[in-house]
Amino acid sequence: MEQEFASTLLENAVTQLSRLPGIGRKTALRLALHLLRQDEQTGVDLGQSIIDLRKGITYCTCCHNISEQPLCPICSDPGRDTSTVCVVESVKDVMSFERTGQYRGLYHVLGGLISPMDGIGPDALQIRSLIERVDRENVAEVILALSATMEGETTNFYIFRQLGTRPVRITQLARGVSVGNEIEYTDEITLGRSLVNRTLFADSFSRK
Amino acid sequence: MEQEFASTLLENAVTQLSRLPGIGRKTALRLALHLLRQDEQTGVDLGQSIIDLRKGITYCTCCHNISEQPLCPICSDPGRDTSTVCVVESVKDVMSFERTGQYRGLYHVLGGLISPMDGIGPDALQIRSLIERVDRENVAEVILALSATMEGETTNFYIFRQLGTRPVRITQLARGVSVGNEIEYTDEITLGRSLVNRTLFADSFSRK
Repeated sequence: MEQEFASTLLENAVTQLSRLPGIGRKTALRLALHLLRQDEQTGVDLGQSIIDLRKGITYCTCCHNISEQPLCPICSDPGRDTSTVCVVESVKDVMSFERTGQYRGLYHVLGGLISPMDGIGPDALQIRSLIERVDRENVAEVILALSATMEGETTNFYIFRQLGTRPVRITQLARGVSVGNEIEYTDEITLGRSLVNRTLFADSFSRK
Repeated sequence: MEQEFASTLLENAVTQLSRLPGIGRKTALRLALHLLRQDEQTGVDLGQSIIDLRKGITYCTCCHNISEQPLCPICSDPGRDTSTVCVVESVKDVMSFERTGQYRGLYHVLGGLISPMDGIGPDALQIRSLIERVDRENVAEVILALSATMEGETTNFYIFRQLGTRPVRITQLARGVSVGNEIEYTDEITLGRSLVNRTLFADSFSRK
């Protein structure tokens, strides 16, 4: 490749930055020139934090969440309910559920969803390790907490079939009208399910 | 600040990444998680390239372009015409003019434009060093190559006044209809100037 910039260091930084998703060479150049305008420590801190991140973080051997130890803080927390496993697509989803403050069980991060269109089959995901975990540990409930999309439903169904007759309760997230959404703009499939799965109004007071 | 993520390393990388312009915490998290999905070397290479960039690049003592040496490759190129200095706003503009392949003189990077609204006065820019350069070196022509905006015109005029009666030719970029643009969508000020400064049609053939 012909060198685009006068400096090899700039060339290299722009090439590396433009490998990030959503960052093209123009943006990468803008970021690099921005870093050059900041004091030296700012740039060095950024570079070092990325190296530390990549070298220091691994995946939890049990739930496949990111972790600095072989077992992540959630899996190694003695206060969590080990009988419940919430199956999520990604590390980000673990963060989302943790922020709700409503869940005290463990997680299982699949690392994606089954998507034949993108060439992602069950073997590319942490589904086998989920089944093994159910067989090995004392799991009473598996919560399927995947997106309400075609890929999510396909993956839900695949896991449901794989778990087969194992003595474990398989649940999924409630489908219904999103809090803050207007009925007028809610699609009819969601409305239908929210009607079928309606809950006692009084329950909404008794819940914290 | 309360820690948002379970991992300090992730927290730190996200904080550092979100200091970049146009990158918020959500995007920073997406980038960090992306890096964790890549192989380790990719992340380490990115981090190291940023550190190398920041530690290895400095500014040319003569023209204030970025450089790995005290004098940038353009200033130290014996083949360039040292009697012509093109005044530009930023390092990016040097790259733009170099890409045209039409210029063999030197540059002077101001590092911005005069903008009282943003609190940027002449002293924040490399204007004094430009005047000193004209006094010190054998500069025959100063090309004002700043944006055709209010800030650009203000800066042009300020430099013009500062150069005063010094025996140097002061020129500015031609204003006219951009190549590829339709007359219908060109503003009348540009049209007016393109009419006043019209050039001989035959000259467009004789030029390379």
